[in-house]
Amino acid sequence: MKIIVDAMGGDLGPLEMVKGSIDAVNEFGIDIIFVGNEEIIKNELKKYTYAEEKVEILNADDIITNDEDPSLAIRRKKNSSMVVATKALSSGLGDGYISAGSTGALLASGIFIVKRIEGIHRSPLSVLYPTLKGFSLLLDAGANVDCKPEYLYQFALMGSIYMEKVMGKSNPTIGLLNIGTEKGKGNILSKDSYTILEQSNLNFVGNVEGRDLPTGIADVIVTDGFAGNIALKLTEGMAISIFSLLKEELMKNTRTKLGAALLKPELKNLKNRMDYREYGGAPLLGLKKPVVKAHGSSDAYAIKNGINQLIKFVENDVIKIIEENIHIENNNG
Amino acid sequence: MKIIVDAMGGDLGPLEMVKGSIDAVNEFGIDIIFVGNEEIIKNELKKYTYAEEKVEILNADDIITNDEDPSLAIRRKKNSSMVVATKALSSGLGDGYISAGSTGALLASGIFIVKRIEGIHRSPLSVLYPTLKGFSLLLDAGANVDCKPEYLYQFALMGSIYMEKVMGKSNPTIGLLNIGTEKGKGNILSKDSYTILEQSNLNFVGNVEGRDLPTGIADVIVTDGFAGNIALKLTEGMAISIFSLLKEELMKNTRTKLGAALLKPELKNLKNRMDYREYGGAPLLGLKKPVVKAHGSSDAYAIKNGINQLIKFVENDVIKIIEENIHIENNNG
Repeated sequence: MKIIVDAMGGDLGPLEMVKGSIDAVNEFGIDIIFVGNEEIIKNELKKYTYAEEKVEILNADDIITNDEDPSLAIRRKKNSSMVVATKALSSGLGDGYISAGSTGALLASGIFIVKRIEGIHRSPLSVLYPTLKGFSLLLDAGANVDCKPEYLYQFALMGSIYMEKVMGKSNPTIGLLNIGTEKGKGNILSKDSYTILEQSNLNFVGNVEGRDLPTGIADVIVTDGFAGNIALKLTEGMAISIFSLLKEELMKNTRTKLGAALLKPELKNLKNRMDYREYGGAPLLGLKKPVVKAHGSSDAYAIKNGINQLIKFVENDVIKIIEENIHIENNNG
Repeated sequence: MKIIVDAMGGDLGPLEMVKGSIDAVNEFGIDIIFVGNEEIIKNELKKYTYAEEKVEILNADDIITNDEDPSLAIRRKKNSSMVVATKALSSGLGDGYISAGSTGALLASGIFIVKRIEGIHRSPLSVLYPTLKGFSLLLDAGANVDCKPEYLYQFALMGSIYMEKVMGKSNPTIGLLNIGTEKGKGNILSKDSYTILEQSNLNFVGNVEGRDLPTGIADVIVTDGFAGNIALKLTEGMAISIFSLLKEELMKNTRTKLGAALLKPELKNLKNRMDYREYGGAPLLGLKKPVVKAHGSSDAYAIKNGINQLIKFVENDVIKIIEENIHIENNNG
């Protein structure tokens, strides 16, 4: 198996991307194609021991930043690591692709270069959302802000397949993010989506409220990209804010500092349990090839985890299964 | 000043409603009309010392529960504390009204009995949202799930007046909840709302993201009732979940239990800082009379705080100021 890695994306750049990928080569036995500035990548590679025949470099001198308009950037920067990597994936040079670069640019290049599976209306951004029980797959976390009920149904279908095949969750439960648990609650989109999901073959467990998200009430949480993005970012914001309040309380005086010192490993553990990076990457579902977005702040460990997720994405034929199910749906509809 | 209190609403019932109201009578010198079962209320009143001429009871034998359909319930249960209290407010028996009962029923009786101010499209649910800096007013927190840009503009206007006149914040900043900070981000509703808010005389500071909500980035946060409700309930859910994780970590062994014991007052303080009840009530803006919704789990302290908020709501002529500003807007538009 050969994985394409955008070596230039991510806040921490080639340093962590290369380290994490080489760890994946050594641990999982896969091949890697690094895409990016050849000289920089070669310099990073010098630091590590690995089977050299398992690593290739595809030079790309340009970089797409987070500040650029995604669609414009992928049209203009033909020699960016993002565009070169996506084209390499599309032409079959590798089996899957991971990037920690601009989410918007990755989505845009996925849609325009790799292209959507026939019958798929929209590609959602899917994230592994940390919960008390482990994690849920939340989609759409921000790619499609104005949605139709049939998009949400497809998100649920793809999310269900991904959770089962890649994350090993059998018969995943599907919850619809809403403002109340009863049927008939919510806006026009959520009411109509409820009806479609209820009539589907998916393991739909009904509406779930904002307060239930952190408990892990369902394996897959479906919503539009507007509400999903607000929920995702608010979750991050709440974790950060509560830790900042906690820190304030713990630094008050000698007694509290002593208490904090006693609890140091547990407080660190708590922080880790609320941390996105522990969970690797976010799959871009609905595309013709496997693509995983790693968090912008990913370190080598997160990249290795993301590659591991990508390996399962490829090995378990997720895309073929989505294609077959969408095909069945279209024949029936 | 005379405040009408729904003595039967709230999870803790007449016990806390009566106690909190009597505390308000003694502390703020106001008069109270209790609405509900006369016998139960009289029994509660026996426990306290207060100026008897300051307290009246309006008997109402029925109760509207949280499980009932709000519109149906207020039409059918004419002798419920909710309906009797709202009619008392509407007919001028009191200056303001507070209830800890069903939010939906309170909104419905507000809209159908008290009625909206002329020119106001929708009445939002507004909540004081706890932040690192104190609190923001978040509206709409769940009353109107499908909104138009002109609703959001009116929410911003009313929220701004309330924060200035009742909460004492001069020239309150207004943020539009969105999926990115740049202009042009978001769904159709948020893009169009941005344009209206930008052109208004309000102190609009632009888009704010989910992750910024807990920091207190703006005094007033405007959004539709779908996204607002999800954000509000997720905030509660995150606080509960993080505390539950923290508790788990602190109970691991003798060392952690010792650390936890040392930090007891600070952990309690942290919990209070994230607690909704500390902040009293949620105003129902856009109605012809002042109505405040207290949290369902309000204790006497929260009810007293809610009544204090209601007093300022009345004293500072918030409704007259909203009427004047909507009038100006309609003349200009």
